[in-house]
Amino acid sequence: MQVLSAVSALRAALGDRQGIVLVPTMGNLHDGHISLMQQARQHGQTVIASVFVNPLQFGPKEDFAAYPRTLEADQAKLEAAGVDFLFAPGVEDLYPEPQTYRVEVPEIQHWLEGETRPGHFVGAATVVLKLFNIVQPQAALFGKKDYQQLMILRNMARQFALPIRIIGGEIVRAPDGLALSSRNGYLTAAERAEAPRLHQELSQLADAVRRGERDFPRLEAATAAALDSHGWKTDYVSVRRQADLQPPGSDDPALVVLAASRLGKTRLIDNIEI
Amino acid sequence: MQVLSAVSALRAALGDRQGIVLVPTMGNLHDGHISLMQQARQHGQTVIASVFVNPLQFGPKEDFAAYPRTLEADQAKLEAAGVDFLFAPGVEDLYPEPQTYRVEVPEIQHWLEGETRPGHFVGAATVVLKLFNIVQPQAALFGKKDYQQLMILRNMARQFALPIRIIGGEIVRAPDGLALSSRNGYLTAAERAEAPRLHQELSQLADAVRRGERDFPRLEAATAAALDSHGWKTDYVSVRRQADLQPPGSDDPALVVLAASRLGKTRLIDNIEI
Repeated sequence: MQVLSAVSALRAALGDRQGIVLVPTMGNLHDGHISLMQQARQHGQTVIASVFVNPLQFGPKEDFAAYPRTLEADQAKLEAAGVDFLFAPGVEDLYPEPQTYRVEVPEIQHWLEGETRPGHFVGAATVVLKLFNIVQPQAALFGKKDYQQLMILRNMARQFALPIRIIGGEIVRAPDGLALSSRNGYLTAAERAEAPRLHQELSQLADAVRRGERDFPRLEAATAAALDSHGWKTDYVSVRRQADLQPPGSDDPALVVLAASRLGKTRLIDNIEI
Repeated sequence: MQVLSAVSALRAALGDRQGIVLVPTMGNLHDGHISLMQQARQHGQTVIASVFVNPLQFGPKEDFAAYPRTLEADQAKLEAAGVDFLFAPGVEDLYPEPQTYRVEVPEIQHWLEGETRPGHFVGAATVVLKLFNIVQPQAALFGKKDYQQLMILRNMARQFALPIRIIGGEIVRAPDGLALSSRNGYLTAAERAEAPRLHQELSQLADAVRRGERDFPRLEAATAAALDSHGWKTDYVSVRRQADLQPPGSDDPALVVLAASRLGKTRLIDNIEI
């Protein structure tokens, strides 16, 4: 595996290579990321992982400096997963000047995750667009755990006419159902034991919808109440259309239920496609 | 010359071709455009012109429907100029769905041309980004007459890490100095005789700066007053830094003087690099 940090060095190393598949990450890799690397292999000949903690997608209340950086361990995992290139730029490599041109993201950026993370999706979309322009992959993979991000990046790629397939990787879960996340490491032992409830409650809601229940506000409130009665502080539980995360109308499109809830100091998110 | 309107047809026709040079236009071509086509040949093997009247860059007070469309004549001129491909999409080809993802352009979009054309540069930057993604050229040419647009597109390309060289083509002028423009066709005979004054006055201002004069507000006001005393209605005359069109500071960077002024119902723009 070749490891590169400068944009020009990466471009030189890739040359005219075709069939590139990109998996952008912020590092601190777990089995969910590694699963994306393995799936990436099915979509092209050359797999590139990027590790970049992107200051542009951190909100004013979020701690960019404290975000865990574990490049040595990440590198070993990517090497073991058979990744061909690791692009690990510094902030000065991706932002040699202030980033005053950005991706304008529609209203959806202010909902759900956007409510507590102003500017987050503009920052994420902008850095991903830059990574696309640098790497010029034919496909890129993003985990479904960050469902709203995946939807925004997919719609951005389509509306910007990017010749890149955006592929969503299934959520990887612990045996007890908890979605893998860098944030799980912040949980106390008691919180970790409680954490699978998020997935359990969402599964019950999804089952109710599959059985034909359509009173989404009632289902959402009941799920939030069930979590909060066990010490969670729920930001949202919301049934949305998969394609654009708009509230479902009277038609019957593919749905997804998404939730964010805090357990102690740790904010967990999860979702289930219905 | 191959003429294509569908995005997929253009992509299929280009295949894996390298060395593509793109010259985006809104059609209604004059010798200024044709000069860009000829310069394009020096920057690559395949020259593509695009003709697309972009609804996204027309302001609420600007008449998208009335913009002159002269595709047959344009096609003949491009063919004669040796252009290899003409990409002439319809609105539904470039915007098959509402364009809710756009390019966020910094503050500069509201100055100079932006003062009378709200949203113009966001619309122009967004369609050019899409054309770049569709054509994937190694270079693209834009006329220096739309100096602010050229500067915005060049800075967008650099900040988005696009692997595309942005090249500015020199302004082509009539023998009497008037910059060629589609809008010159709207001038009456009397206005056409008066029109070269814009370039004459800007040349005098540029000469004064070259001689060392540095009281830009006085020079700008004098130029605007000279025009207005001959029946013009001047929007702005402004000396700016070439690189970012910011007002010049105490350092001495490369400057440009830009102006927009109305003669009867026709608004003319011009500029001179100093």
